[in-house]
Amino acid sequence: MSGSEPKVVVEMSMSLDGFVATPDHSTDEVHAWYEGGDVAVTMPNIELTFHVDAASAPIVRDAFELGANVTGRVTFDDAQAWGGDDPMGIPSFIVTHRIPDEWKDRDSPFVFVTDGVESAIAQAKAAARYGRPVGVAGGDIAMQCLRAGLLDELWIHLVPVLLGEGIRLFDELDGSPVRLRQSRVVEGRQVVHLFYEVAEHLPR
Amino acid sequence: MSGSEPKVVVEMSMSLDGFVATPDHSTDEVHAWYEGGDVAVTMPNIELTFHVDAASAPIVRDAFELGANVTGRVTFDDAQAWGGDDPMGIPSFIVTHRIPDEWKDRDSPFVFVTDGVESAIAQAKAAARYGRPVGVAGGDIAMQCLRAGLLDELWIHLVPVLLGEGIRLFDELDGSPVRLRQSRVVEGRQVVHLFYEVAEHLPR
Repeated sequence: MSGSEPKVVVEMSMSLDGFVATPDHSTDEVHAWYEGGDVAVTMPNIELTFHVDAASAPIVRDAFELGANVTGRVTFDDAQAWGGDDPMGIPSFIVTHRIPDEWKDRDSPFVFVTDGVESAIAQAKAAARYGRPVGVAGGDIAMQCLRAGLLDELWIHLVPVLLGEGIRLFDELDGSPVRLRQSRVVEGRQVVHLFYEVAEHLPR
Repeated sequence: MSGSEPKVVVEMSMSLDGFVATPDHSTDEVHAWYEGGDVAVTMPNIELTFHVDAASAPIVRDAFELGANVTGRVTFDDAQAWGGDDPMGIPSFIVTHRIPDEWKDRDSPFVFVTDGVESAIAQAKAAARYGRPVGVAGGDIAMQCLRAGLLDELWIHLVPVLLGEGIRLFDELDGSPVRLRQSRVVEGRQVVHLFYEVAEHLPR
């Protein structure tokens, strides 16, 4: 682990028109590239194997090598708690207003954080394995981090589909422009992997 | 000219969050990459030279080699009629409900089309120089073409900025998903050039 703090990153598959899911929370279209090739990549902690193209495989493997996860409540519920454990087997912080009843008063691999995203990020940075990046999952939480200046990088898998409606990744920006630094571009099969650093919050 | 019809393409610079201009129609941020390097590229028909990075230069030159232009009225007005002539010096069709007073009853390099975008595209295809692609400019007209099945390709210059608000390219899609084919990706300096073919209109 280096002396510097773990980075905070959001990694999302997004349609060209900016949606991460359909109105009924389906991610089938934006995640189609996870079955777009024949290189098998397996999640570290759950029985789930994807088959991606050769250029995308190292990208996916890197994205599975996070130090801790911070997840919003909607994403946590949509994922049905990933069957009961963090899918990467790393410290896992769920940002919520209220601890779900089914997770109260029992041993849990999840830490439910009820005092806001800033607290969740601080706890996740402290807990991050090997100083690896903290992943932020869920559009709402990601945008809260961005607005609060807590987000360091965006890893976007841009998918060749126009969904027309649904859940936007960048819907809650509040009109304050953010300049990014395009650090890396990788062309996959029917997906482009775009890596950005948050550079500068511009005045409105 | 080949026996096939000219393609219809929309070429736009777009922020990562999907905006082609700010709320007050400024394109300074999304067009910053046109001055992001030191390779001079000059517009064919007006005194305007850009300075782009080496990877972007051939992309820009190709985009200036269109056969005809179809432009929406808002873009035409925002551009102040490009000083009085099409910037590429090619057949130029302006889609509008009403011919602007200052262009009535005089010689004009522009054809004002008042019977809709389908008519404009048909006329532009027939007039396209050397069978080169017909360019569609203006988000509203581009989306009308997409909805009507008139659009063949999207050439998107994706820019590393989040504008947060403004004029969206894909705002008027009416919720009908469109699958694209990612045909080419070129990494420029602080811009990614993305080429897509319109593949399939999916059921809602």
